[in-house]
Amino acid sequence: MTRATGVAHPNIALVKYWEKRDERLILPVAGSLSLTLDAYPTTTTVELDETLDADTFTLNGAAGDETQTGRVTRFLDLVRELAETDTRAHVSSSSDVPTGAGLASSAAGFAALAVSAAAAFGLDLDAPALSRLARRGSGSASRSIVSGYAVWHAGDDEASFAEGVTGPDTRMVVVTVDRSTKAVSSREAMKRTALTSPYHDAWASSTAEILEVALEACRDDDYTRLGRITELHALRMHAHIQSADPPIRYLRAASIAVFDDVERLRAEGIECYATADAGPNVVVLTLPGDAAAVAERLAVHGTTTVVGPGPAASLVSAGAER
Amino acid sequence: MTRATGVAHPNIALVKYWEKRDERLILPVAGSLSLTLDAYPTTTTVELDETLDADTFTLNGAAGDETQTGRVTRFLDLVRELAETDTRAHVSSSSDVPTGAGLASSAAGFAALAVSAAAAFGLDLDAPALSRLARRGSGSASRSIVSGYAVWHAGDDEASFAEGVTGPDTRMVVVTVDRSTKAVSSREAMKRTALTSPYHDAWASSTAEILEVALEACRDDDYTRLGRITELHALRMHAHIQSADPPIRYLRAASIAVFDDVERLRAEGIECYATADAGPNVVVLTLPGDAAAVAERLAVHGTTTVVGPGPAASLVSAGAER
Repeated sequence: MTRATGVAHPNIALVKYWEKRDERLILPVAGSLSLTLDAYPTTTTVELDETLDADTFTLNGAAGDETQTGRVTRFLDLVRELAETDTRAHVSSSSDVPTGAGLASSAAGFAALAVSAAAAFGLDLDAPALSRLARRGSGSASRSIVSGYAVWHAGDDEASFAEGVTGPDTRMVVVTVDRSTKAVSSREAMKRTALTSPYHDAWASSTAEILEVALEACRDDDYTRLGRITELHALRMHAHIQSADPPIRYLRAASIAVFDDVERLRAEGIECYATADAGPNVVVLTLPGDAAAVAERLAVHGTTTVVGPGPAASLVSAGAER
Repeated sequence: MTRATGVAHPNIALVKYWEKRDERLILPVAGSLSLTLDAYPTTTTVELDETLDADTFTLNGAAGDETQTGRVTRFLDLVRELAETDTRAHVSSSSDVPTGAGLASSAAGFAALAVSAAAAFGLDLDAPALSRLARRGSGSASRSIVSGYAVWHAGDDEASFAEGVTGPDTRMVVVTVDRSTKAVSSREAMKRTALTSPYHDAWASSTAEILEVALEACRDDDYTRLGRITELHALRMHAHIQSADPPIRYLRAASIAVFDDVERLRAEGIECYATADAGPNVVVLTLPGDAAAVAERLAVHGTTTVVGPGPAASLVSAGAER
């Protein structure tokens, strides 16, 4: 019996990932750029068990539902293929991501699972290989393998992994305006925009261009340019999503109220920029010295939490014994 | 001295007009569909005066500013060219459109000016010719020449006019959430989206397709289909606009709150659909029997006014004497 425990953190994209060009391999239509956070870790233990007929999965101490367990098993199947074994495993995961906080739990979840499963199954994978593996669980998980700023390359299965880049020192204020489960999942919404939004092709090609500019801003340590791109690209992603048929409006009145206030804050001289993933909650990019003031100002809209750049996914422990 | 007085009403587009393919001729990148309203008329008198060196313009009794007077003069230049004369005119206009009510005053304004100026200058123009003329003042004015539902055809100068179509009997609830002047004018915003939004080409081609479906819904008296298209297309226009660089967000938190409530009303069985022009105010399409209930429900967001299908632009009086 071999076991390993890994930990990983969520990430927030500045240049967004939206839509796959390959559903099975989870290859994105364009590259993306994110910041791995220093909060809300997911810790996952994978323990091989020769006696098992099927993998087991528990999340925060409770048995995972069929969908969750199915995704874990399909992911472990990839690891088993690499390790050339049929051995099943117990997977237990604990996550600090508050439900519906606007931070996708799947990125940290599959990054932690990739690290722990690879170790438990005895695979010696470098960071790009771990990132490629995590990608197969959830696209954005490829980026949570990496610390701080991470660019996830588009390309084929071999080339599509995330790697670290340096960039301006920033903080993010997570503004949780709504904790309800979203009506349309990201996976569903991606399929719908790909099929029905007239902006599908332009979204993919313009994202590839925007990513180049964002990476240039990172290289130049240019906070203003990176911030402008962050808000611009978030608005373009939500523009694309709301152009599906039927439309999907993830940004609700409370979300737009945060965007409105961020615009006002900029007019007042506090340079901050809003972004939002596929849900109603908003994340605001700020300079380190402004984060507390921005969080205080935006607290009227919901719970605010200041987060910063976080570490790479890592192995906490590994061994042959409990 | 010859004078004529014309009256015209605003219109609200169900399939939106956004962006020109010819700035001078005001030819749109795609056709559009609107409902001319039965409220907020603009009444305009044009009075030729051989003694004038320049046109004069008064709006609601006050002298128009330089921009307004310039637009009126450039419009009258087109009429003078058709009439083969150099005579200048006094133009006085009175408008009931509340400032910033979310109803563009230029559509009714230039439709009323087209009708009155053509008569004052002795031109005998049929409705398509009047619509083409009004178009040169403001694109959407081409549609206010026509009663009720009006389709404004794309095409060249000769072909680009509006004409009436039949459609389902509907009302509109105008929800005025914000009366402030918009930060970016439609003209400016159209130029910016054409130059910087990645969705520019797809916007034009998809609008042409949507218009065909909307016209089919009109022919079939299919309120549901027309309503769905109305909201879908408004969201796609605002998606395109917010994708400009820098982004333009006409829909503010208060606007989205109306869209959110319209979604709730539909879930409760009241079939209504939201749209919005280039500004924060929202117009809700309803069945005649639901208009009062919808207006009452949405009153929490601002002033609500129920309007219905209105008449064509028309000549009120014409003669050689005061």
